[in-house]
Amino acid sequence: MLIDGLQCGHFDRDAFEALRRGNVGAVTITAGFWEDVTESLDSIGRWRDLCTANADIAEIARTAADIRRIAGEGKLAIIIGFQNTELFGNRIRLVELFAELGVRSVQLTYNNQNCYAGSCYEAEDSGLSRFGRELITEMNRAGILVDLSHVGNGSTLDAVRFSKKPVAVTHANADSLFPHKRNKTDDVLHALRDNGGIIGCATYRNITGDHYCATIENWCTMVMRTVEIAGIDHVGVGTDRSHNFTKPDYDWMRMGRWTRGVDYGAASAAKPGKAAPPDWFPRVEDIGKIEGGLAAVGFTPEEVAKITHGNWLRVYEAVFAS
Amino acid sequence: MLIDGLQCGHFDRDAFEALRRGNVGAVTITAGFWEDVTESLDSIGRWRDLCTANADIAEIARTAADIRRIAGEGKLAIIIGFQNTELFGNRIRLVELFAELGVRSVQLTYNNQNCYAGSCYEAEDSGLSRFGRELITEMNRAGILVDLSHVGNGSTLDAVRFSKKPVAVTHANADSLFPHKRNKTDDVLHALRDNGGIIGCATYRNITGDHYCATIENWCTMVMRTVEIAGIDHVGVGTDRSHNFTKPDYDWMRMGRWTRGVDYGAASAAKPGKAAPPDWFPRVEDIGKIEGGLAAVGFTPEEVAKITHGNWLRVYEAVFAS
Repeated sequence: MLIDGLQCGHFDRDAFEALRRGNVGAVTITAGFWEDVTESLDSIGRWRDLCTANADIAEIARTAADIRRIAGEGKLAIIIGFQNTELFGNRIRLVELFAELGVRSVQLTYNNQNCYAGSCYEAEDSGLSRFGRELITEMNRAGILVDLSHVGNGSTLDAVRFSKKPVAVTHANADSLFPHKRNKTDDVLHALRDNGGIIGCATYRNITGDHYCATIENWCTMVMRTVEIAGIDHVGVGTDRSHNFTKPDYDWMRMGRWTRGVDYGAASAAKPGKAAPPDWFPRVEDIGKIEGGLAAVGFTPEEVAKITHGNWLRVYEAVFAS
Repeated sequence: MLIDGLQCGHFDRDAFEALRRGNVGAVTITAGFWEDVTESLDSIGRWRDLCTANADIAEIARTAADIRRIAGEGKLAIIIGFQNTELFGNRIRLVELFAELGVRSVQLTYNNQNCYAGSCYEAEDSGLSRFGRELITEMNRAGILVDLSHVGNGSTLDAVRFSKKPVAVTHANADSLFPHKRNKTDDVLHALRDNGGIIGCATYRNITGDHYCATIENWCTMVMRTVEIAGIDHVGVGTDRSHNFTKPDYDWMRMGRWTRGVDYGAASAAKPGKAAPPDWFPRVEDIGKIEGGLAAVGFTPEEVAKITHGNWLRVYEAVFAS
């Protein structure tokens, strides 16, 4: 069974079925990037409708026990995540309310500095702000996982050290293996280990590189090297796979309402469009190759279980309210 | 024990203590008039803070069982109500989400026609709209009481007949006893009886009149006459008492953001200010006179129990999710 720490895009029944064919038991979805309070409630409503309409194969999970039960029934557990904090409308009291509505993972910021933290793309990373500390305390209390993937390395380090609960870099790679602003430096990965947290290794080509995208063996070797840095208990999978994503989705994700210009996120002016999936991962169900791939590069069955789902479950159990 | 179907204003510890001195076991408060989605979430957050800060004497109730337990512990049960539908942002999917956050009573409209229904102050009452029917179905499903107090009599009649669950006129009087646009005609009260619903008799002078405000005996005689119209199982108390209300509160309540002019609500240009409370009800704790007053005008102990709390509890049990 695989738990994927982050996917995005427009899920549908085909996506759910493909994920199940790939033996995915749980996935954290992206319910919003720049959506404000009301739009985020809309999004939660739509996710409920989608899961109700596909109740035979998908169900929203609120606890680690839910995930175990749903996956055990052969269905896909949906963990509601947001890749930005816009849903909270800069209001500390809304954290608890969104937690009650099932939100379980929220990234401190998406690409841009905000009132909580600096982003991986800012020239200067502010570090965690006063409000950022308040937010993490509140997310810890309310049972929402702090996601630091697009957060700057300085702010990430602050947040990892400040959080009383394990945190996650749900979808990124080690910067020492593939240098990219979106990837995490070794000091961050060491702090993550000390915090009891987790990094979900990504398959998004722009932050993974062609070499690790060439074969499943190469990608699993990258995971092994990440384990050497962060430790076997602190590495999982967070593919960053998107479903049914088209140009308007990329435009919204990258530009939101914050610029009249163009922003490329992890892409570039030279390669502005949709990045090709890894060569070994053309179809969604190819995600199922990961488990065998990890064994093939030398992980023991116990280690494979930790990377594919055990580490995520441990973090979820520590963070989510039961 | 008294259940008050509607109060408003800025509650504080003094108000909670005064209500307890008046033997009030539960009260539906007004968490919003014109507050939008985000502002309504703010308001829920503030109500949680207020109840947390006064946890020894007040607690938010979500079920009829909660009310019985909280009142049984000598505390005040807070039922979260809104006097308008603005919190839903014209989004059907937000009904379920607000219900999960503890909202238990929502008035279809406050003084003005909206997308759901006509108001008591419109020249033409549209009746219940298409969206209005959808909303009532959703509120029935989600466990939120449909409040029809400021709704036009025509729309009220439509709603009472359409709702599959009992509805409430949480704070109004019988128009045949004191004619006022805010009060309910006998056909509405008969329909309310057939629906299994309830009217909470008000003490707000502008819709009660000086005579019924003069003595507790007069007011309880009004209740008796209301029982003659609606039936002993369908009358309760909904004082419409406000706490710490000042001019900016009246301005917000009456004008919200919908006019640059002046609106008087149930008041008038001749008497624009705060209406004096009934002569028998100068202090909040005088609400405790109601129970004895009802017995004094000839209600049996069983009838007094129905009017003071039993009827509200029956409606709450039928409507709220358990």
